[in-house]
Amino acid sequence: LHRGEKDEVERPGISFFFNPRSIALVGASEKEGSLGRAIVENLIKRGFQGKIFPVNPAFEVILGIKSYPDIMSLPETPDLSVVLIPAKDSPRSLESHGIKGIKNVIIISAGFRETGESGRKLEQEILRIAKRYRIRVVGPNCLGVFDNVSHLDTFFVPEELVKRPAAGVIALASQSGSFAGHAMDLASFEHLGICRVITYGNRIDVNEADALDYFSNDPNTRAVGIYIEGVDRGREFLAAAKRCARIKPVVVLKTGKYEATRAGITSHTGVIAGSYAAYKAAFVKAGLWEADSLESFIDFLKATTLLPLAHGKRALIVGHAGGLGLTMADHCISHGLEVPKIDGLLLKKLKEIALPYASVLNPVDLTASGTDEQTRLVLNQAIVESDRFDLGIYLALWGLPQSSDRIGRIILESMRASGKPIVVASLSGETCLRKRDVFESIGVPVFLSLQRAANVAALLAQRAGSGGSPSAGNRH
Amino acid sequence: LHRGEKDEVERPGISFFFNPRSIALVGASEKEGSLGRAIVENLIKRGFQGKIFPVNPAFEVILGIKSYPDIMSLPETPDLSVVLIPAKDSPRSLESHGIKGIKNVIIISAGFRETGESGRKLEQEILRIAKRYRIRVVGPNCLGVFDNVSHLDTFFVPEELVKRPAAGVIALASQSGSFAGHAMDLASFEHLGICRVITYGNRIDVNEADALDYFSNDPNTRAVGIYIEGVDRGREFLAAAKRCARIKPVVVLKTGKYEATRAGITSHTGVIAGSYAAYKAAFVKAGLWEADSLESFIDFLKATTLLPLAHGKRALIVGHAGGLGLTMADHCISHGLEVPKIDGLLLKKLKEIALPYASVLNPVDLTASGTDEQTRLVLNQAIVESDRFDLGIYLALWGLPQSSDRIGRIILESMRASGKPIVVASLSGETCLRKRDVFESIGVPVFLSLQRAANVAALLAQRAGSGGSPSAGNRH
Repeated sequence: LHRGEKDEVERPGISFFFNPRSIALVGASEKEGSLGRAIVENLIKRGFQGKIFPVNPAFEVILGIKSYPDIMSLPETPDLSVVLIPAKDSPRSLESHGIKGIKNVIIISAGFRETGESGRKLEQEILRIAKRYRIRVVGPNCLGVFDNVSHLDTFFVPEELVKRPAAGVIALASQSGSFAGHAMDLASFEHLGICRVITYGNRIDVNEADALDYFSNDPNTRAVGIYIEGVDRGREFLAAAKRCARIKPVVVLKTGKYEATRAGITSHTGVIAGSYAAYKAAFVKAGLWEADSLESFIDFLKATTLLPLAHGKRALIVGHAGGLGLTMADHCISHGLEVPKIDGLLLKKLKEIALPYASVLNPVDLTASGTDEQTRLVLNQAIVESDRFDLGIYLALWGLPQSSDRIGRIILESMRASGKPIVVASLSGETCLRKRDVFESIGVPVFLSLQRAANVAALLAQRAGSGGSPSAGNRH
Repeated sequence: LHRGEKDEVERPGISFFFNPRSIALVGASEKEGSLGRAIVENLIKRGFQGKIFPVNPAFEVILGIKSYPDIMSLPETPDLSVVLIPAKDSPRSLESHGIKGIKNVIIISAGFRETGESGRKLEQEILRIAKRYRIRVVGPNCLGVFDNVSHLDTFFVPEELVKRPAAGVIALASQSGSFAGHAMDLASFEHLGICRVITYGNRIDVNEADALDYFSNDPNTRAVGIYIEGVDRGREFLAAAKRCARIKPVVVLKTGKYEATRAGITSHTGVIAGSYAAYKAAFVKAGLWEADSLESFIDFLKATTLLPLAHGKRALIVGHAGGLGLTMADHCISHGLEVPKIDGLLLKKLKEIALPYASVLNPVDLTASGTDEQTRLVLNQAIVESDRFDLGIYLALWGLPQSSDRIGRIILESMRASGKPIVVASLSGETCLRKRDVFESIGVPVFLSLQRAANVAALLAQRAGSGGSPSAGNRH
């Protein structure tokens, strides 16, 4: 990890990549189905309010916007330029950017280091030009930036293929464009609001450390998700990750965990990835939350912004289903949680609350005839009033009475009154998805499989157990 | 597991539970929101063609159907009776069933062994009555039967809460009603067609062995899914499981894997579950496919009916996304598969097929600009023509060109030509779900997370490696 540290000169910030007042689009096009057209369309569609300058000698107007033959003929120096011309033409283009005084360039184009020796040379050439003119570069071989605050969107993938998520408090950084796109699509499906996304591909300049530093200081960002294949300035990354994790939770997904996949990374973005053990140790040291799949990446980001930490691992499971309550208990235990039996006075109290044929030993199965009010009373006795449990798990399944919005409020109130998380588990059938929507509309996150919910619950318990993220206590 | 073997007298078959020509509904009701009304409504809604006899002294007509005050006054002896009156009234009711000559009874009512000593006595009483009159009993404390062939549906849960799956070739057996209901709801969402479902709750008579024997011989059933909390006639179960697994694949999900969850089972259906290790060994011995979550239970059933086995563990990953291809590779390796690098002549051939900036080392990333034809050629070279790989994994993500129905057919053709499985992985965002529908409409199963796809691929490889299910070779 501590390899390849380079010149650590003070570099200008990257805020214009997210908030440009004006933007040049080099390689914009009106041609149906072209990437150059998709980017112009997406910018218009998102409602970007700054000036847009398409650059392409083949057009005088692109989608109703005046186009310019080259960078030099632009009427002003834009804050940002997005380049999507063939790799071999990019050095000449970057040179004119420098002469024109443009300081922030996103190079979307592929065909650099990831394709072999000649691409690597091309990349070194643009890096030299960028340094000479003090241009900050995002990319090449990336999708650039999506921003729900400034309405910037340089992703060339149309909305029909990648649904843009609603505005929210999560910022994402990713080497891989495909990862970022799918995380955004999944975030939309999962009701996870996003403020900003940056992808940097081959990452010749702007990297993880820049993104983490920017997000640390960004008032719109409350938690950060970062996808990593390999880091080539290890110390810089570790320092930035520590700084950021001290202020807000950072969830990381690392790919290339095995020898075989590390080799693949080189051909993908030209990075040589170090051993996974070294990364894992660094993540722990920096205080990051490590996810092991795209789904847990999204789930952990949801949890970290909407749920408090658990101060222990004793879980109470409450629902209206016997078999699935037991399956939930199995998943909890296999994730390192405890599902202690209820006895003594608490057992007596819960028996008074529940129906005679309900089971209240933990898992608590209130049965399909159980009511909202019974759920409220059970949570109140076992989670709010008692110190026997550190967290609750609620099964929002079909046994749930129709009034699920009331249950959502009961869960919110129990969390507020107890300071303990209640993790809501569901499944992905249609009925469950409808119920999920009701819960999430009032800010109660729902996790769409029992296993995923157990994974989240275990993380919340583990984070508190290990000292946790220092910001965790006041996340609510 | 080998505890509690009881009288092994020849018992009449259970086919009338699935295919009754006439059915009595004891406790049917017109009362809005009652279980007794839900069952009548569901039977009508599903289009059950046999005679229906509601039994309830409080009504003369229920939902337009003549109702009878008691069992004795029925104009004929129905093939099946469904009882949903309070537990304490059930012995007297069962007695009249016996006198009337009814031989098949589903007792939906709860309030027996699972509630303690007095419930256990009640249960023993009805068992005695059933034996005396040679009545076969499903339940008590269950949802009964759902059948897409005969259109029987005794589940009291309305369709708004549990979507009934389309007709298909999968049969399900479950102790737990909530598990069966959610499996059905999820099966609908996952396009998994179901022929029959039986739930037997406290299982005083009809049990796993009966269900497995029935499904073994059922021409509508091509694969069986079974959910188990605990088995109390171990030898009988093992023998039936072996018989069934010899003819068709059987997927099992066992809950109560830990000491803490085993205790919970007792309060749920009154069963004392043995150690998980013993069950696990028995599953292997019987040749069952063991799933570890509700999702993998559904996935394995999909895979076993739609995909061939893999004869080794070398996986080729093909897609249009770099980062997610690598994440897929990580999941494959962590599930015990191999992702061997491509070299030599095959590498040369794939390079000729793909775009210059594509990566073809494995994972193969054809890039967002890759075409269907390139996918076809890659699969043809690496899966059909070469013996370097035992299975393919295709990432059906947003990079996929619009013509995804053509890709689906290419995958089908490659599977047919090679005899190897190609596991299609996707995610659960909206775009991915739309693509999923296109694939599944032509019989190519899609698994909705990279992890789930890796789990399925590993199972297909492992089954072949361990000798597999004897029927596996001719499942197609």
